[in-house]
Amino acid sequence: MTIFSKIIAGDIPSYKIAENDHFIAFLDIMPLRKGHVLVVPKVEVDKVFDLPDSYLAGLLVFAKPIARAIEKSFDCNRCGISVVGIEVPHAHVHLIPLNDANDLNFLQPKLKLGEEEMKEVQNLIISNL
Amino acid sequence: MTIFSKIIAGDIPSYKIAENDHFIAFLDIMPLRKGHVLVVPKVEVDKVFDLPDSYLAGLLVFAKPIARAIEKSFDCNRCGISVVGIEVPHAHVHLIPLNDANDLNFLQPKLKLGEEEMKEVQNLIISNL
Repeated sequence: MTIFSKIIAGDIPSYKIAENDHFIAFLDIMPLRKGHVLVVPKVEVDKVFDLPDSYLAGLLVFAKPIARAIEKSFDCNRCGISVVGIEVPHAHVHLIPLNDANDLNFLQPKLKLGEEEMKEVQNLIISNL
Repeated sequence: MTIFSKIIAGDIPSYKIAENDHFIAFLDIMPLRKGHVLVVPKVEVDKVFDLPDSYLAGLLVFAKPIARAIEKSFDCNRCGISVVGIEVPHAHVHLIPLNDANDLNFLQPKLKLGEEEMKEVQNLIISNL
């Protein structure tokens, strides 16, 4: 059972943003930028392109209002998308507010946000959904 | 008219990989890695999340066989996805074979491939579709 499946099952807490039958979105706890959200399918597959077409068809539609809320919540040019997927063997899509290509660079140091800051980010995005 | 719309119209040549009513896929001419493909909607919008839901639902389904062909064609852990989108105001999705997160880092120097090498990459991916 991956860490994401444990979050989906409620066994590990998360800063949840949105959820439907097929996907959950929550804050990345090691964000590249404030507003960095993960979209995770509730079915446990390693690679995003292993997902059934019904999931692939729903993924970006589910992500769209979240991306718009991220764009409203933070000073950015737009919300970018990245799927790397090597660290956790459970498909996940990064939504990251960006002003330049470096904002999607996973080699840069991650932000360290405290619980209060994470809650603020969560509430801000939810308020703009 | 964006450079991608000119490619879609056939006014600018490209190393085409696949096409349907809504999307076209061709080689990025400034690839991060061999096998770097762009998936572009035929409707001209700036941001990927400006696309109508019908396009968003089709995008990853269209990309899936291309991603699998990229994975078969090149030595990689998997095919990653990146949407940055600042340089060309026409939504586009990068499909890039990756072995680590740095392979999706747009700050690294681009490859310079000659026409013969580009054609080889194109033919290899198409042969694995």
